[in-house]
Amino acid sequence: MYAPERVKIFTEKIFKALGCTPADARLSAEVLINADLRGVDSHGVARLAGYVRLYDHGRLNPRPEIKVLHQTPSTAVIDGDKGLGLVVAPFAMKLAVKKAKKAGSGWISVQNSNHFGIAGYHAMLALPHEMIGWAMTNAAPLVVPTFSREKLLGTNPIALAVPALQEPPFVADFATTAVAYGKMEILQRKGLDAPSGWVQDVEGLPTTNANAVKEGGGLLPLGGDREHGSHKGYSLGAIVDILSGVLSGANFGPWVPPFATAGFHGVATEQVGKGTGHFLGAMRIDGFRPASEFMESMDTWIRRFRQAPAVDGEKVQIPGDQERNFMADRNVNGIPLNDKVVESLEELGERFKIKF
Amino acid sequence: MYAPERVKIFTEKIFKALGCTPADARLSAEVLINADLRGVDSHGVARLAGYVRLYDHGRLNPRPEIKVLHQTPSTAVIDGDKGLGLVVAPFAMKLAVKKAKKAGSGWISVQNSNHFGIAGYHAMLALPHEMIGWAMTNAAPLVVPTFSREKLLGTNPIALAVPALQEPPFVADFATTAVAYGKMEILQRKGLDAPSGWVQDVEGLPTTNANAVKEGGGLLPLGGDREHGSHKGYSLGAIVDILSGVLSGANFGPWVPPFATAGFHGVATEQVGKGTGHFLGAMRIDGFRPASEFMESMDTWIRRFRQAPAVDGEKVQIPGDQERNFMADRNVNGIPLNDKVVESLEELGERFKIKF
Repeated sequence: MYAPERVKIFTEKIFKALGCTPADARLSAEVLINADLRGVDSHGVARLAGYVRLYDHGRLNPRPEIKVLHQTPSTAVIDGDKGLGLVVAPFAMKLAVKKAKKAGSGWISVQNSNHFGIAGYHAMLALPHEMIGWAMTNAAPLVVPTFSREKLLGTNPIALAVPALQEPPFVADFATTAVAYGKMEILQRKGLDAPSGWVQDVEGLPTTNANAVKEGGGLLPLGGDREHGSHKGYSLGAIVDILSGVLSGANFGPWVPPFATAGFHGVATEQVGKGTGHFLGAMRIDGFRPASEFMESMDTWIRRFRQAPAVDGEKVQIPGDQERNFMADRNVNGIPLNDKVVESLEELGERFKIKF
Repeated sequence: MYAPERVKIFTEKIFKALGCTPADARLSAEVLINADLRGVDSHGVARLAGYVRLYDHGRLNPRPEIKVLHQTPSTAVIDGDKGLGLVVAPFAMKLAVKKAKKAGSGWISVQNSNHFGIAGYHAMLALPHEMIGWAMTNAAPLVVPTFSREKLLGTNPIALAVPALQEPPFVADFATTAVAYGKMEILQRKGLDAPSGWVQDVEGLPTTNANAVKEGGGLLPLGGDREHGSHKGYSLGAIVDILSGVLSGANFGPWVPPFATAGFHGVATEQVGKGTGHFLGAMRIDGFRPASEFMESMDTWIRRFRQAPAVDGEKVQIPGDQERNFMADRNVNGIPLNDKVVESLEELGERFKIKF
């Protein structure tokens, strides 16, 4: 177990070593450690070496000049100037909140960015303002549309954060696939098969081969197959791609550039836009009804759902509960990092002369 | 096969007989027939008798005074005054478009409404304005959250319509469950079992009993079970419920009143808000980037996805293709209505002295 503060300070120093401003380095470390604390290990410091590789490949600008390209009272497109998504997305969210204060809502589509960490972090930035926060991002193609043998969509997550009064907030944050790719990597490391309904092979047939995605197959959209609604998961992934990529002028579909850790899918030589795209939004609750009334109703909603009789041995959770449970534990007991991740951090430490 | 125009004129006359204005009767008939044309038979004139039953029970006001309760430049809550959702939702969408013209986007949460037909119809109202349209609605509880034995959510659909230039629009419109309840009813009529992954029984265990929902079980969220991401389908249904019900001051969760055809779940005696809730939105494309540029990129998106190599014997479709294929066929060859639906229309004809 590793103390969150120790990992965070190290991460911050690495980002500073890349040339980030102290504020950007602190924010980026905060976003990454937040993923580890919330139990989303695949999106935490496990990716730090990947961000450094993005920098090494000239795809990451540590001192971006983030620009608003076009705007209306409630919408805008911003150019992330190849900055860290970890910095660009909070910038966009701040603008969304500012617009929502005046116009009731704010919606920002982002081009020319990079991987933004966990979507939930950005959506939750709206909560202290008594707003509902939205965050989405497109990502490099790992997912097959229904009946396609070709990977055309990323795992394209959607996050929505909604404040309550006495209850904790409702925070949904999920990939639009049956499972996140991180789960396949765990199976690969352990040499295990995947459950059916997670992946297909190169011919588009169901398989339990945990290496299928590397071998020409693809992750299945949420729903799995057509009979179980995979066209809905495909639609969701497509919606995220359109709002993040097409609406902003970023790359979309099969053209979204890969994160630097995902060595098994090449960089598209052709580009249809700039970098990776995100979509962030904030809705002022009292643009609809008095915030205290709404938040009381959210308490009622949350309590009612928690009280539902559950299947034997289980309980009904509220979106966000699982991550909060992880956070409560890891803030006290530390973050577990697997050997490969620790090794990657030590290598970074050596390279930049920073003690891990 | 029944000529669409004939069914539409009959439907319009029934709504007029209930006391609707000529304009509202025409619009309501238009929305219902649109569902039949698009192949969503469960949401078309098959429901006409149900709307009449809503009226008979005093739950439907044929002459609603729809009111804006509160607004900002880009948001509003409206009270549907117990009107037909078929009329209230287009009213809300018109307001969303008006706000989007000035503020870049418009977001309307609706309370005190009734069933609004197919979500896709309302989302598509944004298309002629070069806007992206959103439509959602909550509905009476048929769906179990992950691990719940109790039904707490409706099939809560999400629709998004996005214009393209030379290609037809992208129109996603789907329930946030593995399957729509209409599919269970078809199996019930035929005495067939359901595929696994669609429903659970009263104990919360997997079942293939097509009558399970009537017998204390529930429809499964998109994803099916936890291992295949049912918590994501549950999150989606919850998001729709919160934006439609909690944000507007309508009923939410288990309190959403049933549509009058769904005799097997009783009306909740307790109410936490007014009627059924919807959520509609419009985003002006040139609030983000020039509309022609965006729509050209949508053409590229659509063509690229269509070209994907498909599984043997299938092809990769774009959300909206299936409904367009139905429409092309049914506009020419007529709408197939099953005997039960025809019977219900003939009964309405007798009662209101209108020839079907």
